Amino acid sequence: MKDTMKAMVYYGENDLRFEERPTPKIIEPTDAIIKLTKTTICGTDLGIMKGKNPEIEATEIEKNGTFNGRILGHEGIGIVEEVGSAVKKFKKGDKVIISCVSRCGTCENCQKQLNAHCMNEGGWIMGYMIDGTQAEYVRTPFADTSLYHIPTELNEDIAVLLSDALPTSHEIGVQYGDVKPGDTVAIVGAGPIGMAALLTAQLYSPSEIIVVDMDENRLNMALEMGATKVVNSGKEDAIAKIRELTNGRGVDCAIEAVGIPATWNVCQHVVKEGGNIANVGVHGQSVDFALEKLWIKNLKITTGLVNANTTDMLLKTCCSGKLPLDKMITHHFKFEDLEHAYKVFKNAADEKAMKVIIDYH
Amino acid sequence: MKDTMKAMVYYGENDLRFEERPTPKIIEPTDAIIKLTKTTICGTDLGIMKGKNPEIEATEIEKNGTFNGRILGHEGIGIVEEVGSAVKKFKKGDKVIISCVSRCGTCENCQKQLNAHCMNEGGWIMGYMIDGTQAEYVRTPFADTSLYHIPTELNEDIAVLLSDALPTSHEIGVQYGDVKPGDTVAIVGAGPIGMAALLTAQLYSPSEIIVVDMDENRLNMALEMGATKVVNSGKEDAIAKIRELTNGRGVDCAIEAVGIPATWNVCQHVVKEGGNIANVGVHGQSVDFALEKLWIKNLKITTGLVNANTTDMLLKTCCSGKLPLDKMITHHFKFEDLEHAYKVFKNAADEKAMKVIIDYH
Amino acid sequence: MKDTMKAMVYYGENDLRFEERPTPKIIEPTDAIIKLTKTTICGTDLGIMKGKNPEIEATEIEKNGTFNGRILGHEGIGIVEEVGSAVKKFKKGDKVIISCVSRCGTCENCQKQLNAHCMNEGGWIMGYMIDGTQAEYVRTPFADTSLYHIPTELNEDIAVLLSDALPTSHEIGVQYGDVKPGDTVAIVGAGPIGMAALLTAQLYSPSEIIVVDMDENRLNMALEMGATKVVNSGKEDAIAKIRELTNGRGVDCAIEAVGIPATWNVCQHVVKEGGNIANVGVHGQSVDFALEKLWIKNLKITTGLVNANTTDMLLKTCCSGKLPLDKMITHHFKFEDLEHAYKVFKNAADEKAMKVIIDYH
Amino acid sequence: MKDTMKAMVYYGENDLRFEERPTPKIIEPTDAIIKLTKTTICGTDLGIMKGKNPEIEATEIEKNGTFNGRILGHEGIGIVEEVGSAVKKFKKGDKVIISCVSRCGTCENCQKQLNAHCMNEGGWIMGYMIDGTQAEYVRTPFADTSLYHIPTELNEDIAVLLSDALPTSHEIGVQYGDVKPGDTVAIVGAGPIGMAALLTAQLYSPSEIIVVDMDENRLNMALEMGATKVVNSGKEDAIAKIRELTNGRGVDCAIEAVGIPATWNVCQHVVKEGGNIANVGVHGQSVDFALEKLWIKNLKITTGLVNANTTDMLLKTCCSGKLPLDKMITHHFKFEDLEHAYKVFKNAADEKAMKVIIDYH
Repeated sequence: MKDTMKAMVYYGENDLRFEERPTPKIIEPTDAIIKLTKTTICGTDLGIMKGKNPEIEATEIEKNGTFNGRILGHEGIGIVEEVGSAVKKFKKGDKVIISCVSRCGTCENCQKQLNAHCMNEGGWIMGYMIDGTQAEYVRTPFADTSLYHIPTELNEDIAVLLSDALPTSHEIGVQYGDVKPGDTVAIVGAGPIGMAALLTAQLYSPSEIIVVDMDENRLNMALEMGATKVVNSGKEDAIAKIRELTNGRGVDCAIEAVGIPATWNVCQHVVKEGGNIANVGVHGQSVDFALEKLWIKNLKITTGLVNANTTDMLLKTCCSGKLPLDKMITHHFKFEDLEHAYKVFKNAADEKAMKVIIDYH
Repeated sequence: MKDTMKAMVYYGENDLRFEERPTPKIIEPTDAIIKLTKTTICGTDLGIMKGKNPEIEATEIEKNGTFNGRILGHEGIGIVEEVGSAVKKFKKGDKVIISCVSRCGTCENCQKQLNAHCMNEGGWIMGYMIDGTQAEYVRTPFADTSLYHIPTELNEDIAVLLSDALPTSHEIGVQYGDVKPGDTVAIVGAGPIGMAALLTAQLYSPSEIIVVDMDENRLNMALEMGATKVVNSGKEDAIAKIRELTNGRGVDCAIEAVGIPATWNVCQHVVKEGGNIANVGVHGQSVDFALEKLWIKNLKITTGLVNANTTDMLLKTCCSGKLPLDKMITHHFKFEDLEHAYKVFKNAADEKAMKVIIDYH
Repeated sequence: MKDTMKAMVYYGENDLRFEERPTPKIIEPTDAIIKLTKTTICGTDLGIMKGKNPEIEATEIEKNGTFNGRILGHEGIGIVEEVGSAVKKFKKGDKVIISCVSRCGTCENCQKQLNAHCMNEGGWIMGYMIDGTQAEYVRTPFADTSLYHIPTELNEDIAVLLSDALPTSHEIGVQYGDVKPGDTVAIVGAGPIGMAALLTAQLYSPSEIIVVDMDENRLNMALEMGATKVVNSGKEDAIAKIRELTNGRGVDCAIEAVGIPATWNVCQHVVKEGGNIANVGVHGQSVDFALEKLWIKNLKITTGLVNANTTDMLLKTCCSGKLPLDKMITHHFKFEDLEHAYKVFKNAADEKAMKVIIDYH
Repeated sequence: MKDTMKAMVYYGENDLRFEERPTPKIIEPTDAIIKLTKTTICGTDLGIMKGKNPEIEATEIEKNGTFNGRILGHEGIGIVEEVGSAVKKFKKGDKVIISCVSRCGTCENCQKQLNAHCMNEGGWIMGYMIDGTQAEYVRTPFADTSLYHIPTELNEDIAVLLSDALPTSHEIGVQYGDVKPGDTVAIVGAGPIGMAALLTAQLYSPSEIIVVDMDENRLNMALEMGATKVVNSGKEDAIAKIRELTNGRGVDCAIEAVGIPATWNVCQHVVKEGGNIANVGVHGQSVDFALEKLWIKNLKITTGLVNANTTDMLLKTCCSGKLPLDKMITHHFKFEDLEHAYKVFKNAADEKAMKVIIDYH
């Protein structure tokens, strides 16, 4: 292991630097060091770059008086390079998926499986409160609960989707939305999260999945991946159209997969009495909640960050090959071209990009 | 049965008339006619009076071209006077509780126990879409599923609370809010609904129940009825105070029992990660939903109208005498003094009124 | 409607007569009379024939002092001939599926969706406590909750499976067994119920479904219908084999679909800690329950009769054409050949019969 | 810490020795050493003594070729003497409750909260597969997930009940049995487990709790602790009596708290359709399961070992002082009199003993 490594580092709004950094070391006995073999870029990384998360530098300055940059990235797969003395399930050389969520397994929240809110410096911290995966090596806290062995039969590109996109969509979209056989589902937003919700919703056999987006290319992709109907909200009134498609009844479950007031609004007005709205989108501002109409409708509205407690199950399901996950992966880049990959992903619609894979060799 | 009877009739905004009306008759074979022995006034009745529900006259005019007034009231107990040919569980002379919610038992919604949204002209219709209980007689649709036998051991004043207040608070507040042993609960609003939520929450043994209101009298009443702490939101910042009372953690469940933006706002800012907000209040305007802070918190927010599917259970529990329900009943009036009862109930805070019982003899 | 009709009538052990009987008439206002277009024979009908249900004649004699035979059959589709005065959802001429379970919708059990145990002479009564569907006409009680409209896009042979086989397997096998994505499932018995469990289990995306039977033909059929592995319990030790196929862990869910001690025994010894045993089989004798080994294993064991509360959902799912249900139907007979159909079905293994359809024209 | 300490050691059937043993040392970084201040004796300890668990010596001999005795006991409270390097939540001097169940928090089972079946040498192992708490010191594995801080307001005798009796009865009896407000519950067996089930069932407000035992003293105690009715099964037919007490309907939930065929048999014949049987008793032989009668009844039957995932909640509830737990504690002994305590507990009925507390100073 070299002393330094290449990494994509956030220094402040619109200031990302692809530069040499010290290679990470084991700090806690529950840590592991992983040599990355594949990573990816998430919409959240773009959000950080655009300055949506100033708490990153603020927290660091409060703790240490200074901020020396944060390596981005909370997704990826790799090979275990070193493990701390308390790590039991992994050893040097193991091929692993790195979960975006770390968990101590012992705090009040972890004991209720609310790992996203681990109270011992777990939860989502990689590429956010500690250095992340867009580097040659990463330190992962709580290795025993945050890493997953990669079975030989699993496609390694798809393995990268298990770090975040698949479990987030499944847990916060599909499970919180309580998608059941026979249900009618609307997914508002056909980016990677919406698309992963479309795939994982099908594990529960809903009878209709209506996907809404403004990008015709993404809607066509949705149809290939199992949507039964699509609505182009740039061309027609999504609320009126979804009601029409559901004989005026509305849907059993609406999944918000964008994070802006307009998409929230579609969700709140297309769900039928007794139905669910599952918000997966990361919002930057508050929304108007039409309680004067919805107080009476016996709705359930959920929000949340992934707990990664279905990652194991999704991994098994990916191995069975039932889901056309490979269609989600549109681009490949070499790690040395990471800056170019960011450019392409920033223009995802024009570039017809969904999930981009970064390969290290 | 006389041809006419006395009834409290809504004719339009601020136009209630206590007048003679024709006695109701069986229309459908599943109907029953009940001779009232006790009724009450609900906050919703005041809302109708104030003009919050113009759909009452609009719907009637659309259907029949004219609106001849609507008898108010969706709560009460009485004696069965007559039953339709398809009614099996009740016969003339039976003492019954009248549920505020009627259900056909056969439509898609009733088959999922979403009786509030019965699609065959059930749900909440009495005193709203059809004539109600503030009269000497009332016609109740779907008698077999909308009436409950009164056991001899049940206090008849308390029986009146089983029409609406107790099941609404229990189902939409406590059950939707998923109150569990050991939980910390905040109830925002100490009117009849908040108070009934306070009582029915105790069926599940939460460790803390914090009640919030601006009326010192009601807060004292809450302490007598099982609140472990109270917060006067007229005198202190309720959000800050609840956080302080919960060691900065917030509550597992916040129950909104008023129906205005300010009380919603308290709820959304005092619930901890993984917690629930159960909205019971009837809202007249939309609210601001702080999704930019709450998207990450793994919350569950619920809304709804009572389904009355726990009325039977609550009835049994009331019989056991465990809950101090009689404290909720502050005033008694004779039916002929119903106009006076309205005046008192309109000034509930000044009159220290919680639930008022109207006796027919 | 003629005064008499042809029907298959049970008179006692091994005494079935295919004879002329009076055509049924409306008795209750909630009844309907259906002219059958298709019916089928169930394993339960064979059980009655063999004398396993002497309560049929006993109950009748207790009530009426005499037993004049019972028309068999609790499955079928047809055309509504006449409805009682309280029936709202159906009218003469409607094409309908007849559910094997009737429900009043108003009793304590129906109100908890435990329709199988309707306390107002509902539940499973057709072809058992009242005359059934193996006739030209049948009277169905509680028509509004016991009949289902047949959509034009639904294959009518498959519609017959919605009377009993599909909802029973789904509710009592798959739902009670809590089959989830990624689970390992064993289905013990590959007759119509096991096969329908195999199909409906796939609505929840388990990763493995192991089917056990002694008939090689049925095991091959199971593989075509989605089993990932099969075990011939006539040729190998099913318990040892299932353990081997699951790396010694056992299955998450075992579905008992036969009803004899030997198949129960396989189930109880192949389920892993924290797993479920869902008994669907109709048992004629008690079984040995190895509590000395299983008390510690955190198991859930369920039993039951279908409630038919997922029939609507299954109907929608059948319409979508996702499940290869037509493979379950192996034979067709004309109604006038019903006696021959019984002979074939009695020798189901030799005749390679699964579900036989009886057509009326 | 001395090199040796006094301990109650099992050497084989009816061979317990109260003798000097080496004081335990930290082995894994997740271990802690606790100096006991109180312990107790469990029915399971008596079972081991009587030779019901020969796997204790068998396992040891298989691993190490020899068996040098096992210190008994899986319950107790104490003061942390030393912690391993990976322990975060506890430090020397902390007062703690020792859970009978240890859990790694990382294995497949712990990640589903099935801690009882921890796959990394956790689960129930203390006083069984490793040395236990009937000693001056004990080594507890996975200290962060197996210990609980004792709040100052908690009675320390009651704290001992949180090691095993309360969580076992609550999780495996009351929660698995799905006790709900308004339910009718039968608890068969009024020993410590049945009594703790009686107390924790009341957290969910059932309307009736019928307790069955053959010991009049224990039945009287049950009435004091909240039973609404009692049945002496030595004097009357428990099945017939429970049916009579429930108007022929049977109970919603039967909790088996003994572990013999006769008590299982009462449970299986008194539960109503749609009800639950929760087996908590440790059985030494198989039982007869009347599937020929019960296949149709839509029952749920559960078994299991405690997961201790409600210990935290129960601890909070005990602090609130709502439950009359102190009544369960009938005897106190000094640690040096542990042999005498065993004698008394072996004759629990004659001695009118329920839970005995062993004090160390």
